Amino acid sequence: MRQNKIDKLIYLFSKLPGVGARSAKRIVLHLLKQRDRVMLPIAEAMLDTAHAVQECSICNNLDESVLCAICADQKRNKKILCVVESVIDLWAIENAKFFSGTYYVLGNVLSAGSGNAPKSINIEKMLKTIEQAGVEEVIIATNATMEGQTTAFYITEKLKKINIKVTRFAHGIPIGGEFDYMDEVTISTAFNSRQFF
Amino acid sequence: MRQNKIDKLIYLFSKLPGVGARSAKRIVLHLLKQRDRVMLPIAEAMLDTAHAVQECSICNNLDESVLCAICADQKRNKKILCVVESVIDLWAIENAKFFSGTYYVLGNVLSAGSGNAPKSINIEKMLKTIEQAGVEEVIIATNATMEGQTTAFYITEKLKKINIKVTRFAHGIPIGGEFDYMDEVTISTAFNSRQFF
Repeated sequence: MRQNKIDKLIYLFSKLPGVGARSAKRIVLHLLKQRDRVMLPIAEAMLDTAHAVQECSICNNLDESVLCAICADQKRNKKILCVVESVIDLWAIENAKFFSGTYYVLGNVLSAGSGNAPKSINIEKMLKTIEQAGVEEVIIATNATMEGQTTAFYITEKLKKINIKVTRFAHGIPIGGEFDYMDEVTISTAFNSRQFF
Repeated sequence: MRQNKIDKLIYLFSKLPGVGARSAKRIVLHLLKQRDRVMLPIAEAMLDTAHAVQECSICNNLDESVLCAICADQKRNKKILCVVESVIDLWAIENAKFFSGTYYVLGNVLSAGSGNAPKSINIEKMLKTIEQAGVEEVIIATNATMEGQTTAFYITEKLKKINIKVTRFAHGIPIGGEFDYMDEVTISTAFNSRQFF
């Protein structure tokens, strides 16, 4: 019979994204077996990070100061703004190490299903940044999902009013992708956007 | 560009069982988005549990006192001892809610591959428990893997010397299992252990 503290911890872990009841048990047992080497360091890193990290006042990225490292970096091109849904998308683009502009993290997407209204994405702050920084190009990098596309359309409409260059990432077959594994919409989109060799 | 504290936390999470680099990022972002509601409670539950939980002095189960709830429970049958590899197996058997005996957690298995010698499984403590509690039946519940079976064989040899009833869980087709999904050894074992309707 398991005791309350262990059960509670398993329950808390089982609610994390990608972790189910079985993984949560294995994780907690792994932690308990290596208390000093794994469990306490993670717990302390969590407390430390929770207290240190904040949202960037300009772009909503998560970092350890009022301005995130990207917004604070003088070498980043402030004239190009890439709009992403979530910090996880920002991480993915940064990880590819090619983009030298700045970001704006929406933190949410428009969604009829889950009832996210336009006011759930803070677009006013973005418009203010665009004006203040003199942004010349906005790259909409919302995900290629229904919600992401709806959000992209909404933002584009808003940006048309201030007469700014708006672009988006190209759609097509991923590098290394095989036709057989692609859905019909991706294949037809890639066909329609075909380019000269 | 991600900061050190977040990176460090993602790294620590990515080393947990069943969590890879991608899940770790998603988990850490999920935590950071819900600091007060999720991140701090988990961190505090981890510290709390790490400090409270200890190994049972009799059976090696993990619990909050010197004697685990099972060993301390007067209603459990101390004459029947179920030997498991790990606390996770103990949890699985307890979860099935049919066993009223007690356990002994080996904490390890014999393995030629990873070089686990017989002394890596603390069998002396188990033999002492068997003697002191007057155990009448030892049920070997090591896993049906090469290591588990080797360990079972080793323990059985040791127990033969003290002339005690030694049993093991039956092997066969799992309930709900389909022949098509079973390996050959399971099928032939189940055939050889066939029973009357």
